[in-house]
Amino acid sequence: MRATETLIPTLKETPAEADIASHVLLLRGGFIRRLASGLYTWLPLGVRVLRKVEAIIREELNRRGAQEVMMPVVQPAQLWRESGRWEAMGAEMLRMKDRHERDYAMSPTHEEVVTDLARRVLDSYQRLPVNLYQIQTKFRDEVRPRFGPLRAREFTMKDGYSFHLDDDSFERTYQDMRDAYSAVLRRVGLDFRAVLADGGNIGDSESHEFQVLAGSGEDVIAYCPESDYAANLEMAEAVAPAPSDAAPLELAKVATPDCRTIADVAKFLAVEPEHCVKTLIVRGAETPLVAIVLRGDHELNLTKAGRLDAVATPVAFAAETDIRTALQCSPGSIGPVGLAMPVYADRAATALANFVCGANDEGYHLTGVNWRRDAGGAQTVDVRNVVPGDPSPDGKGTLQFARGIEVGHIFKLGVKYSEPMGLSVQNGAGEDVTLTMGCYGMGVTRLVGAIVEQCHDDAGIIWPAAVAPFDVHIVALGYDRDAAVHEAADAFLNACEERGIEALLDDRDERAGVKFAEADLIGAPHRVTIGARNLKRGLVEYKPRHEGQGDLAPPERIAERIAQAKNT
Amino acid sequence: MRATETLIPTLKETPAEADIASHVLLLRGGFIRRLASGLYTWLPLGVRVLRKVEAIIREELNRRGAQEVMMPVVQPAQLWRESGRWEAMGAEMLRMKDRHERDYAMSPTHEEVVTDLARRVLDSYQRLPVNLYQIQTKFRDEVRPRFGPLRAREFTMKDGYSFHLDDDSFERTYQDMRDAYSAVLRRVGLDFRAVLADGGNIGDSESHEFQVLAGSGEDVIAYCPESDYAANLEMAEAVAPAPSDAAPLELAKVATPDCRTIADVAKFLAVEPEHCVKTLIVRGAETPLVAIVLRGDHELNLTKAGRLDAVATPVAFAAETDIRTALQCSPGSIGPVGLAMPVYADRAATALANFVCGANDEGYHLTGVNWRRDAGGAQTVDVRNVVPGDPSPDGKGTLQFARGIEVGHIFKLGVKYSEPMGLSVQNGAGEDVTLTMGCYGMGVTRLVGAIVEQCHDDAGIIWPAAVAPFDVHIVALGYDRDAAVHEAADAFLNACEERGIEALLDDRDERAGVKFAEADLIGAPHRVTIGARNLKRGLVEYKPRHEGQGDLAPPERIAERIAQAKNT
Repeated sequence: MRATETLIPTLKETPAEADIASHVLLLRGGFIRRLASGLYTWLPLGVRVLRKVEAIIREELNRRGAQEVMMPVVQPAQLWRESGRWEAMGAEMLRMKDRHERDYAMSPTHEEVVTDLARRVLDSYQRLPVNLYQIQTKFRDEVRPRFGPLRAREFTMKDGYSFHLDDDSFERTYQDMRDAYSAVLRRVGLDFRAVLADGGNIGDSESHEFQVLAGSGEDVIAYCPESDYAANLEMAEAVAPAPSDAAPLELAKVATPDCRTIADVAKFLAVEPEHCVKTLIVRGAETPLVAIVLRGDHELNLTKAGRLDAVATPVAFAAETDIRTALQCSPGSIGPVGLAMPVYADRAATALANFVCGANDEGYHLTGVNWRRDAGGAQTVDVRNVVPGDPSPDGKGTLQFARGIEVGHIFKLGVKYSEPMGLSVQNGAGEDVTLTMGCYGMGVTRLVGAIVEQCHDDAGIIWPAAVAPFDVHIVALGYDRDAAVHEAADAFLNACEERGIEALLDDRDERAGVKFAEADLIGAPHRVTIGARNLKRGLVEYKPRHEGQGDLAPPERIAERIAQAKNT
Repeated sequence: MRATETLIPTLKETPAEADIASHVLLLRGGFIRRLASGLYTWLPLGVRVLRKVEAIIREELNRRGAQEVMMPVVQPAQLWRESGRWEAMGAEMLRMKDRHERDYAMSPTHEEVVTDLARRVLDSYQRLPVNLYQIQTKFRDEVRPRFGPLRAREFTMKDGYSFHLDDDSFERTYQDMRDAYSAVLRRVGLDFRAVLADGGNIGDSESHEFQVLAGSGEDVIAYCPESDYAANLEMAEAVAPAPSDAAPLELAKVATPDCRTIADVAKFLAVEPEHCVKTLIVRGAETPLVAIVLRGDHELNLTKAGRLDAVATPVAFAAETDIRTALQCSPGSIGPVGLAMPVYADRAATALANFVCGANDEGYHLTGVNWRRDAGGAQTVDVRNVVPGDPSPDGKGTLQFARGIEVGHIFKLGVKYSEPMGLSVQNGAGEDVTLTMGCYGMGVTRLVGAIVEQCHDDAGIIWPAAVAPFDVHIVALGYDRDAAVHEAADAFLNACEERGIEALLDDRDERAGVKFAEADLIGAPHRVTIGARNLKRGLVEYKPRHEGQGDLAPPERIAERIAQAKNT
């Protein structure tokens, strides 16, 4: 293709609307344009990338027996009322009325529609399992759309749904989809982690997020470089350390005037924060208040806290006035000794001996505290965030942290939709079985944003080969005024097309600097420069986008080299 | 693929919701399922067909320089207000509000969005012409959705828009798109006509509909079998016949009691209806009434009448009371002689001599009427519907009629959107030029319906090879209980896949009759039957879907034959 015949409206300046690299570069490179808040038009280069991503997704899903369908984006409200979500979805779901004043939703997702489809077509257990997917438009009215395609309101999503008679069948499909998602991201060329995610229970394998590693990611991932363990920070298990074997010291009550924080106390008493514990008071499920005890240097994990039986959900910290009323002291002086409420102690806190804690007496702390002797009623739980250097739960090394962009999420729906919507099938024994469902989502437009977020430098995008809008960017210097360059560039374009190489020939009347800058910005993996001087020696310049150094060679040799790179 | 692993929920009975063949067969064959009125889910077989149609469309458009984009389906109202269509679109357009109470439309079409895009990105005449298209979801809230995908509310459409500095440039792109549309329909394998359509002026080439011929079509097409002339009935030109050279007879006024219609008068006076004229009174643009005179056997064409200067648009017949007040006689006794209002006479009426017409006197007609002598003020125009047997306007034969389903429409938008929305570009001379636009639409889901409407028999669909969900349907008789059949069927499936033939193996535990009926219903072009008896002789049965006769041959030979058919 020729630049003069392709709509690539690049921008020299960074648009004010954009604040992260992928958004800036997709706008500047002429891949997308904003229509309105959170709404983007995908331009020719952007569509080329999208179609390649979609093709890879289809191949990996079809290969594993998933079947493509296409469900409407306008959905009758009645189905959402059946599932109980018409009200629950809130303002994120756009609603509309047709000419007969019937209510419809603009699809934020398709669980209701696919469950309705399933109860119409799954007339025999012999049809099971079934795994359906679509690549379709979705709309979610985000409070604050931002980051371009990473958090748009209208977006393209691959969503998939599977149906099963039993959990064994579900587990097999779940594993297949986990493999498929990994295969897609590997083929796209991304550094990613499949992380344990909230959605199932801690430690089970029924919810995974696929996180593309990128410094600008909104999610924190704990992973083990020595194994394939990875989990969202909310989900990463904090392993119990070995308990201290120090001999118990005597319990002592000491004045700690003006000490409000662990740092204050540790400094005042000249101990490390990790030899102190902090006691947080939250609302209880059956009692008014519940205490959670953490080592002084650790942070509470709200997801884990929300799973504790005695804690009210959602987790809410007790108001200071309630604490003062119940305990006659401020939050900074509380401790687990003699506390008249349920007490949960984090594994790391439980492993301490002779530690420091609040004395439940304003301005006093206790030292030399030991659990069994002084606070035996506490229940040991995993309730903290892991920190870098913690042992990996699989016992294979230590955890590190990374930031990630969630591009996929697979999880078990169980009977959440099949039960209220009456999706059941008679099994071989003639018994009605409510079907178990799985759900598999991958953001297609979001994935494009994530690719750029991971694959760019200061000059522009560095597309992974599998999804680049073009394989090679041909920079013809003086195309419009030098007959030899003109002829050689046309011939090289032909040579590429004959070899199945997708090429963009910059045949515009522009300065060399502009052409090189746009080639870097647009980010095709290979760049070939055709100029009069080298051409006299029968040579053109080749440079890969991701390396600084180029070399000179005859054009046929370069075309062969690019063809080989493409086919390996 | 295997039938046991593919969701093909065929139906034995005709669903009550369906009343034409394509709708019935797409439902019965398991290609689509209804979600709600005018909303359909496309099932795996349906999606396979859709994707093939889309791929053909993309190839033919890309080859001609059109560039794919993807514009949002949720569109800000502000753009529709700029074009003046926010109110004009009426109830067909679904409207919604986001969480900030801003108005949006669910896209019925994309002229506003693409014009807005163009004014943001077309910063130089050097970027012109530009031809953009997308394959995207549309929604039009039809008063009466019916015929399945032929008139659904939500549908997939290929819509394209081109931008030009001048008409010459537009004409070249228009011709390219006309070629592209014809190429798509030819490749799909359809009998179609590119017909002149309303949208431009009579006789110009700036609006063509692509009509797939089918008896159930809603549109009537006049076409010439001896040439490529074709036009919608509203647009087909009625050529002027040679004027009669009969010597003028004497004008006579005769009583025609109780004659209200042309048939009555012709019978009473013992003349042919084509020697009478009928005079219709419509509302005028500047006078209260206007007369239109047709030969007695011809029908008024409302589209043509709407283009007459003196006639009010939209065309409205005068009320009988107004006629009686103005002329003191009933409509059945009116004629052009001495009529005090503008008179238009159709070309065929003007060619008559010595004809019969109403006398403008209740119960009387005139005979021996001649235009120049008796009603010289009439203006000759083309204002009737053509009839089969009329000469073709291109002089190459006579017209015939057919019914068609409109699957595409290409037309000139001119400056309809670019002017109100301020889309202009400086030309080479530094002058601001408001851009000329073309618009090119093709209904993708509708096209699938039209294909089935044209390509089916009583037993089911007969897919054209290019868009069939599978190339070959393998009917394995006793697959589940005969080891030889099982093995041969698997081997044949492999042989197909190795050759790039898409095959569906019916490996279900079903009776032969059920399997054959479903193969005919689903409609793959080739059927191969593998049964124990023939297999003992090393043979399988081959039958093309569209022919009654099959033959026997070794499986490898059949696979080769199908591969050859696919690749030619």
